[in-house]
Amino acid sequence: MNQLDLFVTTALKSWQLQVSRATQTFDKLTDEQLYLEIAPGRNRVIYLLGHLTAVHDHLFPLLGLGERLHPELERAFIRTPDRRVDPLPAPQVLRDAWRNVNAKLDDAFLKMPAEAWLQRHTQVSEEDFQKEPHRNCINVLFSRTAHIGYHIGQIVLVRA
Amino acid sequence: MNQLDLFVTTALKSWQLQVSRATQTFDKLTDEQLYLEIAPGRNRVIYLLGHLTAVHDHLFPLLGLGERLHPELERAFIRTPDRRVDPLPAPQVLRDAWRNVNAKLDDAFLKMPAEAWLQRHTQVSEEDFQKEPHRNCINVLFSRTAHIGYHIGQIVLVRA
Repeated sequence: MNQLDLFVTTALKSWQLQVSRATQTFDKLTDEQLYLEIAPGRNRVIYLLGHLTAVHDHLFPLLGLGERLHPELERAFIRTPDRRVDPLPAPQVLRDAWRNVNAKLDDAFLKMPAEAWLQRHTQVSEEDFQKEPHRNCINVLFSRTAHIGYHIGQIVLVRA
Repeated sequence: MNQLDLFVTTALKSWQLQVSRATQTFDKLTDEQLYLEIAPGRNRVIYLLGHLTAVHDHLFPLLGLGERLHPELERAFIRTPDRRVDPLPAPQVLRDAWRNVNAKLDDAFLKMPAEAWLQRHTQVSEEDFQKEPHRNCINVLFSRTAHIGYHIGQIVLVRA
């Protein structure tokens, strides 16, 4: 394995570890417990499940890997704060979407050549990318990896 | 900039972004507010400030960059849960330690050649590293970057 491949492999393992921790965190909770708040008056776990799924789904177009699988999640889980959309999709629907999006992302990631991770993502212009070459695909992966951690840190606070 | 350098630069920017967000999150709180809990009965912010500082301080020996700057933080913030050590160091002492550790880490990181990030860290044996070459220094950086996100996600829940 060359150095660039090893770098990408390590970054992907780090992403997968966070996804797997999030999945375990969701799986520990019953469907009823998904409606618990992470803290008084704050987001409910089910909102964060939908939110993480919708954010990850955006990675397909953002990284040039295709269309989103669940564009219907955008309105309730990205554009709108928790408790404004009622009813939310059922727990099992969201659990399945979460697994589906991450599995398909993994398939797509493993097919990406290492060099492709250093190319610009679709939300940065060619001109800006010339000036800021770190606005690349792997940077998006790093950002979303930290984003998972951010919400896991909140979900573990739930008193189930 | 070659591809490996660009990869490392991007990873370091991602780390620095999380450190900077954590710093802003701590700076928004007064010394008194640092004693607030992130959720009822959970860790206080001051504990997480000390905890993140102590964990980052461990990166010096872990990545072969030298000795820790604040080994005295180990007992209160890594070995012990919150509220078991009294008194904790004063807020300003911890704020200074947080900045100092991260600034010195940044200096050391910027001096590391890109290839060094793919070498094993000091807690993995040469034998294990042969089998699992992703147990390298950049993997530790990824892990700690996600760890910052985990605790920022908690600290933002404080009702200051």
